[in-house]
Amino acid sequence: MRQRAAELYRSVQQEICEALEAVDGSGKFEEDSWSRPGGGGGKSRIMRGGALFESAGVNWSEVFGTLPPHFSAGVNVPEREFYATGISLVLHPRTPMIPTVHANFRFLERGSVAWFGGGADLTPFYPWLEDVQHFHRTLKEGCDAADPAWYPRFKDWCDSYFYLPHRKETRGVGGIFYDYVGVDPQILEDPSKHPHALDTSVPLEEAYQFASTISRCFLPAYVPIAEKRRNEPYSEQERLFQLYRRGRYVEFNLIYDRGTTFGLKTGGRTESILMSMPPMARWEYSYQPDAGSRENELYDYLRPRQWLSES
Amino acid sequence: MRQRAAELYRSVQQEICEALEAVDGSGKFEEDSWSRPGGGGGKSRIMRGGALFESAGVNWSEVFGTLPPHFSAGVNVPEREFYATGISLVLHPRTPMIPTVHANFRFLERGSVAWFGGGADLTPFYPWLEDVQHFHRTLKEGCDAADPAWYPRFKDWCDSYFYLPHRKETRGVGGIFYDYVGVDPQILEDPSKHPHALDTSVPLEEAYQFASTISRCFLPAYVPIAEKRRNEPYSEQERLFQLYRRGRYVEFNLIYDRGTTFGLKTGGRTESILMSMPPMARWEYSYQPDAGSRENELYDYLRPRQWLSES
Repeated sequence: MRQRAAELYRSVQQEICEALEAVDGSGKFEEDSWSRPGGGGGKSRIMRGGALFESAGVNWSEVFGTLPPHFSAGVNVPEREFYATGISLVLHPRTPMIPTVHANFRFLERGSVAWFGGGADLTPFYPWLEDVQHFHRTLKEGCDAADPAWYPRFKDWCDSYFYLPHRKETRGVGGIFYDYVGVDPQILEDPSKHPHALDTSVPLEEAYQFASTISRCFLPAYVPIAEKRRNEPYSEQERLFQLYRRGRYVEFNLIYDRGTTFGLKTGGRTESILMSMPPMARWEYSYQPDAGSRENELYDYLRPRQWLSES
Repeated sequence: MRQRAAELYRSVQQEICEALEAVDGSGKFEEDSWSRPGGGGGKSRIMRGGALFESAGVNWSEVFGTLPPHFSAGVNVPEREFYATGISLVLHPRTPMIPTVHANFRFLERGSVAWFGGGADLTPFYPWLEDVQHFHRTLKEGCDAADPAWYPRFKDWCDSYFYLPHRKETRGVGGIFYDYVGVDPQILEDPSKHPHALDTSVPLEEAYQFASTISRCFLPAYVPIAEKRRNEPYSEQERLFQLYRRGRYVEFNLIYDRGTTFGLKTGGRTESILMSMPPMARWEYSYQPDAGSRENELYDYLRPRQWLSES
């Protein structure tokens, strides 16, 4: 399964980069290969200064080795050997009319326990309800193919994960977030924290099929939104609002995101981890958008909502 | 002592804001008063869009109440009542030729134990050795007035505190950082971690004198550097390097700074805590300055050095 998963994600990286180059029209990805002292390595693909994407990073990696003692991966096994492969991407469009987006899809092993995790979430600056619904609907279809019970679980999980308590805002309009797909919930360290794991304890082969399906949902979930909004005009003021909101992205990633903070504190490859940072961001003391402004409208999107039941 | 300390810091805030307005020549501080639900409040003074300072924040606060159980302030006392007053400032000059600077000076009480803490550190983009030496020398003189053993301790403490392990860089060229001045080291939770506390267990009155002296060292340590470099010409390229380096400031504050991360996670006032964020910052994947460039020179300053012994 290691080899199949690693190849799946390497293919998905290739498909995504090709499609994004086509959407961008002028920017090209450059690949940077790196190896990890403890075992494995990765291929980071970065596009800078594209026509549509101010920056875009699509990382693939395959790492393995021995975890430090007392390190928990959430599963209750004595073995300290681990293996992880997957992709992680963050796209920062130049226009504030197209949302920033993040996705990651991964396969993990600890000792003899193996599972899939991942997710995708959308962070608009000037949101359209129909775009949010399209994003969620596309991901829901990918989940439904495995089990109709999964999307509501993964959607809620995403809402709770991508949350900034100090701002009382979600990072964006969510999407899906999942983990431990293919794991027997008995083996989880704290099964009570993961009631959904009961639903996702499918055989690993089924988990792989889901991983393959859902990682192929990223492009159809996002690209149509980018195409639809690429020619929306925007003002300097709207660009400044985008830079301001990108500050929240930085806050979330550096303060709360476990992949980022854990990666940086345990000697992960800094440049690959921080390719999620926006190319430019602003902060402004006590900024408040005017009541009734389009900027103020965004804040109504930054809380958990049942997008697919709204009209 | 509470009242004397609160008044000391309120006066220092006033002195610093007046001096910085004079240096800036056009920007003015605006004051924002806030109160804390659990007890106390503060006065945040913010200058935006000054001639010299792109943004500047000088916060004063006085907060008190009851700490949550198991919360440690580093001292071994059963009482959970606390009191804290002090100022905290971060200045982001517009020109990359003047360093960003941070300082904070505070008085703390937990139960019947009281002490002073604080520090000041400088983060240049295009450093001059003589400026770094001036900054350190001025702070050293303030420390020496209390005890010549203090500056070397506080300088080392600053170097270890303002360090970014994931970049293997110090945040800037350091300065001083101290805590528990006026505390009997026996009462520290882990005295072995604070050998210097032996030197600083002075009577609280002496600690107050030091607090008063050292907080008055900030202006003479920083303002002459700002005056000296304000008319240095700079290019768009150098401005972009400043914005890139400000990204490191964001990384330090959001990932490692205990005041920031602890404050945000325990319901502190978000806007006052994050007034330390730069008005604008950049990230660039795998950026490396050219060998021999002035940008590359900076990296030689981002490690602990004995500035005052160099020539």
